[in-house]
Amino acid sequence: VTSQHFADRLLAAIEAKQSHVVVGFDPDYDLIPPDVTDAHRPEAYSCEQEMKAACYRQFLGAILETVCDDAVAVKIQIAHFEALGALGYALYEDLVKPARERGLLVIADVKRGDIGNTAEAYARAHLDGADVDAVTVNPYLGTDSVEPFVRRAREAGKGVFVLVKTSNPSSAEIQDLELSTGEPLYRRIAGVPLLVPGYGAQGAQARDLAGLFDAQGTGAVVNSSRAILYAYRKQSGMDWQEAARREVKEMKAALWEAAGRG
Amino acid sequence: VTSQHFADRLLAAIEAKQSHVVVGFDPDYDLIPPDVTDAHRPEAYSCEQEMKAACYRQFLGAILETVCDDAVAVKIQIAHFEALGALGYALYEDLVKPARERGLLVIADVKRGDIGNTAEAYARAHLDGADVDAVTVNPYLGTDSVEPFVRRAREAGKGVFVLVKTSNPSSAEIQDLELSTGEPLYRRIAGVPLLVPGYGAQGAQARDLAGLFDAQGTGAVVNSSRAILYAYRKQSGMDWQEAARREVKEMKAALWEAAGRG
Repeated sequence: VTSQHFADRLLAAIEAKQSHVVVGFDPDYDLIPPDVTDAHRPEAYSCEQEMKAACYRQFLGAILETVCDDAVAVKIQIAHFEALGALGYALYEDLVKPARERGLLVIADVKRGDIGNTAEAYARAHLDGADVDAVTVNPYLGTDSVEPFVRRAREAGKGVFVLVKTSNPSSAEIQDLELSTGEPLYRRIAGVPLLVPGYGAQGAQARDLAGLFDAQGTGAVVNSSRAILYAYRKQSGMDWQEAARREVKEMKAALWEAAGRG
Repeated sequence: VTSQHFADRLLAAIEAKQSHVVVGFDPDYDLIPPDVTDAHRPEAYSCEQEMKAACYRQFLGAILETVCDDAVAVKIQIAHFEALGALGYALYEDLVKPARERGLLVIADVKRGDIGNTAEAYARAHLDGADVDAVTVNPYLGTDSVEPFVRRAREAGKGVFVLVKTSNPSSAEIQDLELSTGEPLYRRIAGVPLLVPGYGAQGAQARDLAGLFDAQGTGAVVNSSRAILYAYRKQSGMDWQEAARREVKEMKAALWEAAGRG
């Protein structure tokens, strides 16, 4: 499977599942369903990080089962794993294999950006070591910060998403700076298949995204993290896995229609 | 001690040690002295990563002892630790306490850049969890990617180095882009105390750096990684710790003189 290019595998997954949905793994202890946190009491663990890692492991493992038929990929936001130190890093690594076994592509949202042998070390760490399908990369240091990722991804049939225009308010400060040519900076960053953040909790709706899909309706995949993971908080009385499943199915249908495929 | 601001502690260390030297921890298995690698044979470990982590642990622990009197800080390049997965991440965390106990400030060269609660998670992971003195941050996502680090650093008496102008050839592609105001992009990034990379192996000499020191000779610290760690490779017959010690002392004296303090 890995001899095929990542973009081909992503395209095949979109067609097979009729879905553009990427589920973001942004674990937040304070939002995890009480029946998960109640099953992991502090006295059973040597430290708070160990307890939280055990909660995340149970919660995210169940979410994998819940979404694997309707989502094409999971996007692991590594910051929330690093926040638990080496235990969190180990959990990140441990989630990749079960996700791939359930037919989900794994995107490591690491936003690394460095140069030379340091960029190579990051590429090896994630594309080879953790064995994810694709990584996100920050282009601020220029093409020789992106190139080691692209080279390693090409060799391994994997993918690289380059940050182009981010969704936060102050992204405009740098990304929109007007160049002497009159164009904004972000347009100078090379175009790649789009990974669109911010569906649901961050406010975007399927109709806002229709223009991002190309003529085949396959040019973009769309991430939602909290609106899926913590859907149970808006669905009183509903089982948290059922609430997540329903949210993914609704998002999937809305995007498929927005892409002109419905 | 942590109630004092990082910049004050850095300044005090420069004065106390008469040194601007930062030693970069960029472990590279292929360059580690043979008497270290020979002490860790593959058959004694369950995997290659475990063997390499044990080598790095011995090597970098000894380097800490070697440089602690003459360097003000160590800069841990986390990519080379992530390349060993969770074992490498644990080693990064384990190096911080012994470094600080030997009077060295610890800068985590993580170049993280993200927004909102993700940036907060990174700040917690490194400034609180790993308990380093300062981190490096990538500003591509704008001030709301830097602000959570600055806020947490201020609360904890720690520091943040923001990437402004990097030393790699293609850094010019983005950082030097001319804005409509006629100034290059990198000048728009807020000024901070300077952490200068690239002494020695990357080619800069003390005399090239004289202009970076302010009137008090304290406005910058200068990092060297490979030229110190692997100094033994250019000093045939010399013990590797002695070669590293000599390199640090020479660099320290050259910078002190260049800063007009000699």
